[in-house]
Amino acid sequence: MTTYDRKVLHKMSYGLYVVTTEFAGRVNGQIADAVMQVNAAPRQTVALSLNNDNFTTELIKQSGRIAISIISQNYDPALIANFGLQSGRDADKFAAFPAKLTEGGLPYYEGPGFCGWLAGPVIERLTVGSHTIFVMAAEEGQPGVDAEPLLYADYLAKKTRPQAEAAPAPAPAGDKPRWRCRVCGYVYEGELPPDYRCPICGVGADMFERI
Amino acid sequence: MTTYDRKVLHKMSYGLYVVTTEFAGRVNGQIADAVMQVNAAPRQTVALSLNNDNFTTELIKQSGRIAISIISQNYDPALIANFGLQSGRDADKFAAFPAKLTEGGLPYYEGPGFCGWLAGPVIERLTVGSHTIFVMAAEEGQPGVDAEPLLYADYLAKKTRPQAEAAPAPAPAGDKPRWRCRVCGYVYEGELPPDYRCPICGVGADMFERI
Repeated sequence: MTTYDRKVLHKMSYGLYVVTTEFAGRVNGQIADAVMQVNAAPRQTVALSLNNDNFTTELIKQSGRIAISIISQNYDPALIANFGLQSGRDADKFAAFPAKLTEGGLPYYEGPGFCGWLAGPVIERLTVGSHTIFVMAAEEGQPGVDAEPLLYADYLAKKTRPQAEAAPAPAPAGDKPRWRCRVCGYVYEGELPPDYRCPICGVGADMFERI
Repeated sequence: MTTYDRKVLHKMSYGLYVVTTEFAGRVNGQIADAVMQVNAAPRQTVALSLNNDNFTTELIKQSGRIAISIISQNYDPALIANFGLQSGRDADKFAAFPAKLTEGGLPYYEGPGFCGWLAGPVIERLTVGSHTIFVMAAEEGQPGVDAEPLLYADYLAKKTRPQAEAAPAPAPAGDKPRWRCRVCGYVYEGELPPDYRCPICGVGADMFERI
């Protein structure tokens, strides 16, 4: 039997999105890449995969509503850090980046830095191990002022380059190896277990790079 | 309430993939863009959305197995036409593009034109109107020789440009307007119903452009 090399999944292409929700006056959001259209008729539906440990996932399970803002190439890196580097359990992610609200009270983003947004109810839900696939029906939404969506691969490339230039020789870190999450930047010290998941953004060990 | 503009979904980013299966000696495949990773641990899983009317979908429902080949920027346009422009009910799609076979007999592609492939069993299935979301567990697979995946947006841009250059003035077509599927090239004559779906690749009316 052919062996499986997990790196093949790095060749799949994604945009980057801010996924937001509101339940009983609590709002939260997170960065996601696993977002795709499911069908187009009679209405457009979109599926997204979120980690069950995330606060946003918890809120969506209660609210049954999702807004998705599509990040553009003209993005603010601080926005991605804001929504990807911390948990909404500890911080108000909308303090630094005030959102607009749909009539139903869902926060979303539009304007420079975004290619558009959409919002609607969760119509299906499927748990797959550590993650849940939510299917939402788009009921509100508009294309944005920016034309070109940010690709996850472009984000990673831009993010990695300046860091490498700024620190060509990584500082020694004692006996322990250090690993950085390629998605949100979280750093883990020690031997990385194969089943490790990033505590911030939920991706697996294969998304960590040794630093 | 904010209105909904379906064009917002054109800002979502995708790769392009050949999705293949085998059941009881019958093989088929189709082009898909709606493919995303679901989780990474304990095993990597991938979700994809396929139209229920497609022959590939029908076979996957029986076989419970899927192979996905990731198309690269070094792609052969004839491959996409072969898998996107005709139905496997009428033609042997592998005649012009012979595939390799996994040990379990699933056809897949590797080599120039591909960034990698993966294959495995369907572990979850969710019907959403016209489409079915399949979740597969990756059990076999390798990154490919080509480094850069083809983006659906790049494919559309390249595909549209030469046609526009070759035919700057569309030929008159009598009284009937003509619409071309931006995904597979299928042409529809007459007024396009809003709930129309491409009979070849299954996308909705919003993916048709007037020609």
